[in-house]
Amino acid sequence: MTSKVYDLNEQTGKDMAQARATTSIKVGVVRDYLYNSAEEWRARSSIVQVLENDPVFDKSQRDFMSRTERYTRGMALTNRIYELQEQNNWSAQDTSIAIATLDEQLPIHLHNVAFQPVFNLQGAPSLVEKYGALIASHGIFGCYLQTELGHGTNVGRLETTATYIPQTQEFEINSPTITSSKWWIGALGKTATHGVVQAKLILGGKDLGPHLFFVQLRSLKDHTPLPGIVIGDIGPKSGAGFGPTDNGFARFDHVRIPKEQMLSKFAQVTDDGRYQQPPHAKLSYGGMLYIRANMVTGGGWLMAKAATVAIRYGTVRRQGEIGPDGLEKQIISYPSTYYRLLPILSHSYVFIQLGRQLTKAFDTMAACLAKGDTSLLAEMHATTSGLKVLVSSTGVQDIEVARRSMGGHGYSAFAGLGRMYNDYLPSVTYEGDNFVLDQQVVRAALKTLHSLFSSPKPDPSTLTPSSFYLRLLIPPVSMPVFSPSIEEWTHPTTAIVLLEWRAALVVSDLAKNIKYPDASVYQRVSKAVSEAFVAKQVGGMIDDLKTKLPGEREQTAVRNIFILYLLTTVETGLVDLLSFNVVRSTSGGDVTRTLRVAIRRLCEEILPEAIGLTDAFGFTDWELDSALGVRDGKVYEALWNRAQQEPLNKTVVPEAYGGSIRPMLLRG
Amino acid sequence: MTSKVYDLNEQTGKDMAQARATTSIKVGVVRDYLYNSAEEWRARSSIVQVLENDPVFDKSQRDFMSRTERYTRGMALTNRIYELQEQNNWSAQDTSIAIATLDEQLPIHLHNVAFQPVFNLQGAPSLVEKYGALIASHGIFGCYLQTELGHGTNVGRLETTATYIPQTQEFEINSPTITSSKWWIGALGKTATHGVVQAKLILGGKDLGPHLFFVQLRSLKDHTPLPGIVIGDIGPKSGAGFGPTDNGFARFDHVRIPKEQMLSKFAQVTDDGRYQQPPHAKLSYGGMLYIRANMVTGGGWLMAKAATVAIRYGTVRRQGEIGPDGLEKQIISYPSTYYRLLPILSHSYVFIQLGRQLTKAFDTMAACLAKGDTSLLAEMHATTSGLKVLVSSTGVQDIEVARRSMGGHGYSAFAGLGRMYNDYLPSVTYEGDNFVLDQQVVRAALKTLHSLFSSPKPDPSTLTPSSFYLRLLIPPVSMPVFSPSIEEWTHPTTAIVLLEWRAALVVSDLAKNIKYPDASVYQRVSKAVSEAFVAKQVGGMIDDLKTKLPGEREQTAVRNIFILYLLTTVETGLVDLLSFNVVRSTSGGDVTRTLRVAIRRLCEEILPEAIGLTDAFGFTDWELDSALGVRDGKVYEALWNRAQQEPLNKTVVPEAYGGSIRPMLLRG
Ligand SMILES: Cc1cc2nc3c(=O)[nH]c(=O)nc-3n(C[C@H](O)[C@H](O)[C@H](O)COP(=O)(O)OP(=O)(O)OC[C@H]3O[C@@H](n4cnc5c(N)ncnc54)[C@H](O)[C@@H]3O)c2cc1C
Ligand SMILES: Cc1cc2nc3c(=O)[nH]c(=O)nc-3n(C[C@H](O)[C@H](O)[C@H](O)COP(=O)(O)OP(=O)(O)OC[C@H]3O[C@@H](n4cnc5c(N)ncnc54)[C@H](O)[C@@H]3O)c2cc1C
Repeated sequence: MTSKVYDLNEQTGKDMAQARATTSIKVGVVRDYLYNSAEEWRARSSIVQVLENDPVFDKSQRDFMSRTERYTRGMALTNRIYELQEQNNWSAQDTSIAIATLDEQLPIHLHNVAFQPVFNLQGAPSLVEKYGALIASHGIFGCYLQTELGHGTNVGRLETTATYIPQTQEFEINSPTITSSKWWIGALGKTATHGVVQAKLILGGKDLGPHLFFVQLRSLKDHTPLPGIVIGDIGPKSGAGFGPTDNGFARFDHVRIPKEQMLSKFAQVTDDGRYQQPPHAKLSYGGMLYIRANMVTGGGWLMAKAATVAIRYGTVRRQGEIGPDGLEKQIISYPSTYYRLLPILSHSYVFIQLGRQLTKAFDTMAACLAKGDTSLLAEMHATTSGLKVLVSSTGVQDIEVARRSMGGHGYSAFAGLGRMYNDYLPSVTYEGDNFVLDQQVVRAALKTLHSLFSSPKPDPSTLTPSSFYLRLLIPPVSMPVFSPSIEEWTHPTTAIVLLEWRAALVVSDLAKNIKYPDASVYQRVSKAVSEAFVAKQVGGMIDDLKTKLPGEREQTAVRNIFILYLLTTVETGLVDLLSFNVVRSTSGGDVTRTLRVAIRRLCEEILPEAIGLTDAFGFTDWELDSALGVRDGKVYEALWNRAQQEPLNKTVVPEAYGGSIRPMLLRG
Repeated sequence: MTSKVYDLNEQTGKDMAQARATTSIKVGVVRDYLYNSAEEWRARSSIVQVLENDPVFDKSQRDFMSRTERYTRGMALTNRIYELQEQNNWSAQDTSIAIATLDEQLPIHLHNVAFQPVFNLQGAPSLVEKYGALIASHGIFGCYLQTELGHGTNVGRLETTATYIPQTQEFEINSPTITSSKWWIGALGKTATHGVVQAKLILGGKDLGPHLFFVQLRSLKDHTPLPGIVIGDIGPKSGAGFGPTDNGFARFDHVRIPKEQMLSKFAQVTDDGRYQQPPHAKLSYGGMLYIRANMVTGGGWLMAKAATVAIRYGTVRRQGEIGPDGLEKQIISYPSTYYRLLPILSHSYVFIQLGRQLTKAFDTMAACLAKGDTSLLAEMHATTSGLKVLVSSTGVQDIEVARRSMGGHGYSAFAGLGRMYNDYLPSVTYEGDNFVLDQQVVRAALKTLHSLFSSPKPDPSTLTPSSFYLRLLIPPVSMPVFSPSIEEWTHPTTAIVLLEWRAALVVSDLAKNIKYPDASVYQRVSKAVSEAFVAKQVGGMIDDLKTKLPGEREQTAVRNIFILYLLTTVETGLVDLLSFNVVRSTSGGDVTRTLRVAIRRLCEEILPEAIGLTDAFGFTDWELDSALGVRDGKVYEALWNRAQQEPLNKTVVPEAYGGSIRPMLLRG
């Protein structure tokens, strides 16, 4: 093999063009599939264009900004979005697309996603009538104050009180201790004018547990905190994440609000201070499930970005061994690289589709809830809890895997994945800490198991999609022995059935050992249960390809991606499958090898389509904001150009020279 | 169970005091063991005291600083350290302890750890004589310029050239392309006056591959770059990591240096331009191995910090279920929490000890190298490559596991673990990308396997510690079937032998399948090989406890920690052990349960000592710089106090109000 000398910089552009030329799929067709329709894609695309061309949304300086600058910029973006909404007559949907494409953790999210839905869902009709429009038009800016310095997960133990004063028909909000300070509240620190406060309702000295209250926090005249309220920002976050969001604290010193400001659609207090039970305590859960359902879609698109950046860089970065073309190999061609990156691509395809299904299911449920029908709530709760854990922990990991695959340059802020990682990182904690949610997923599974077998003749038709795998345990149980060939692994059913068996076995094993389970069991079982559910859904997605995705090559490519999802999921579940003897060597060899070879072959089949499959996400350079993910592949130019803007480069000799460097050199 | 109301804030202090009172071990005894001797601990402690009391080293503002401020502060710290060195008559060893305790990625590291050793090891005696003293006293400030924009791993393809000009007896350093720009070079951006440059040596038009050259970069008069050299900082890094380090770029435009400045201890160029081969090419490897050996110790102490912070927070944070004392449980008492945290503690104990052994082994090897004896080099190379991968990837993961265990507050910058994570993150990339090193570890293992079995009568005495596990493959092979009871797992040999079997089997399996290995095999095999080596060493550490650690309770506690290391390592290797049928159910039940229950029991035994075992690291609050890891346990006060300093809190109404918030509210 001759090893050619070549212009690395020029080659990047050629390699990207070449990869695009080799893709056999029609990118637009797959894109429309991902966006659900050509119309949705076009709508989104036209919004992105408006933003890209507006200097307010320029991203070139943000990596250099201080936290305060990031916050100030964030508020400017937000203000501009609503200006544009007016100017362009955007629908609410358009505006939320616009905000989502900004790729910033903004205070406005808390208003739109937490404050407003909770207010509308739980406020009494009269209160909603009074403030609903003002909230919708951002005439007031809200936040959601639940967590306290001393309590997050255990909402029942919040310390803030709301004591009813029958004499004046008011509630008095009070923070008796430092640990009762509201803490972590997004948009509270500097922005919000109002908030929904979780506080223990105290009636005649009796503690009735946490309830919600609508409280004004700042003056609408001059934005100063109202009397009796101490507010501030809680400080910077890990890795400069959530920079533009003013997560804040607040303490209330006997602050009075009118009785009407209790959110009393479900629970009420009479004028003379008697408590009226909510008809359906669960009716109030809707909001949280909505956020979790949305997290699946959001996570999917984030993984899509990470995959796009890393696969593009892997296509143009050449390093190491000399390939057949006499040039160094493209790093994506190394098994240890594509094995890291293609699964991320598969996660994004799966979670984007799954998110869409979930949002639909949520809408159906919400319609039922509105009619007082709570029958779909339990299932929605079970699926969204498990998926929230799965998506957030997979997403955080995937972004880092993608970043790391890019070697040193991946550690540059200009690569963009570090920013994405640090912003996404707390998703494993908020909306229910993942380790706490694991327990809920497992408890739901055990409950279903018990109720299924509490009947002498267990009836599989009582099982919902989230617990469908439990049917396998109904006698007569015929636990299979799997020892699939490489070819058999490529049939989706192999993996799906295995993942269902795995879930069934770990759940029933836990039930047996419930008196002294091992210490990691909740994590393991929760994962198995969620993955069985997702696998089944992926089976459905594969079946649907024929009708939803025109074009044979396109179907094959996306099918391969889905199968890669299934096989790599089985791979991470191998311990369970092996320890329960489901996957078992019949010949004495290493039974896991056929699976692993099947994965490698599948990856090799997918590789030539990888750029096409990422182009199908339709991200612009502005959206990705990554020097390593540029569409034209010219990563070296992009890195070079960005580096020139570094503030330290504004002076030839740094400020530190006179004060520190020179004295040190002189002493030496 | 009654559920008491209590003052959360006060309780934190009580809980910490209580945990200290319950620890049965003498903290000082274990501390001396960790620091190798009471003297080493005292020496270190007195240095820390000097620094803590010097306002220059105040850390209270750094979380709020911009990158430029972090750099400026970093240089001030450095200058001050050398002032103190003079004032206090510190030895070089004292000074490096002082620098290490600063917990900052500083440009001076590159001078001390990369530039100076390479210069001294590879410079000709005359050159070392000329500059050695100046370098030692920091009269010049150096950096190490190897990596380029276009090449990192593949050093052979670096593009920078050093062309010999016989007429003037000079080398001409040149960067022909944008991708030949030196890039990522620590201390280059703004600080260094000199550097060692890797460049392809060109003699009479012939390319002789990369060699090292000592090059002045900036004027010693006014710190401006010398003519023909374009230098700058490459910009911010992921998650604000490496903030104080000015990783930089440089392009050379036909820059001439005198011939003497080639580092020519090993390879030389004659005056008339002929090349003289180095006697032992490998003699020059020493420096890199030194850094890697040090990374083991450094990683161990970092994990120690992460464990200390998270275990302290877990001890004082109460959340959720009501425990026997009528208070909410301490979160460390939840299995899903201690199962995450105690293994980190075990990693730190193991890697601190291992690092010490390795540094000793390195010194022995260096002494041999100095005599031209390279016999120990291959083994040192094999162990340090594998351990570098193991320590850095474990460390990065552990810091995040610790951070995540603390829920929302773990995401505050004040928790300190985010900073630690983002600074440590690139350790998986520099000093050899982990995925590339995996291949080297595996290649070394395969080579040893082949040479062992190339003889008709394989001789186990040819095996070194890093390949000792291969003895198991020498016929007659008696592959055991393991199905250990909970009790059997507590004997260290069970785990050690299993981990050795795992390594032996995956290596020999790869040898069989070398024509088409699966895509993740290098990672898996490398891990198995390194873990077998470490397990064996841990066995030795356990045996040594009797002589090295006085006190029975102390021995038991540390022994438990070491066994926890072994068991959790086996747990992560279960797939291999199961798929090769080494661990196998003889009764039909889940064979992994005994291991997992053994881990849980062991954790429960360790828990009461956890605070003692972390106190034994001897970290002061200044060193940890974590609001959640404060020694007195008063985490809520610490968080509250730090938040008050956030720059956004300096004004009541933020700057963004007039520009963005008000207009938005008014429009709404
Ligand atoms: C970026 C960010 C934004 C946020 N925004 C808001 C906001 O706008 N409004 C708001 O009200 N809150 C907000 N929060 C707070 C968030 O809701 C909480 O962080 C979350 O509920 C977790 O609670 P915690 O942080 O108190 O963790 P904790 O509950 O203290 O958990 C700490 C640890 O203990 C474990 N643990 C706790 N309970 C149990 C149990 N019962 N069993 C086993 N293990 C347990 C957890 O797994 C975790 O490892 C935000 C948080 C973050 C990080
Ligand atoms: C914080 C930091 C500080 C640094 N400081 C210095 C310094 O002071 N001086 C200096 O000279 N350098 C420095 N470096 C550069 C560092 O040495 C390189 O980043 C490192 O050598 C890896 O090279 P790379 O970044 O070019 O990655 P690449 O080699 O481009 O690797 C990118 C990807 O390709 C894969 N890959 C590459 N080759 C192969 C192969 N043959 N087989 C399979 N996979 C392969 C890798 O696994 C990785 O996933 C620093 C880097 C960082 C991040």
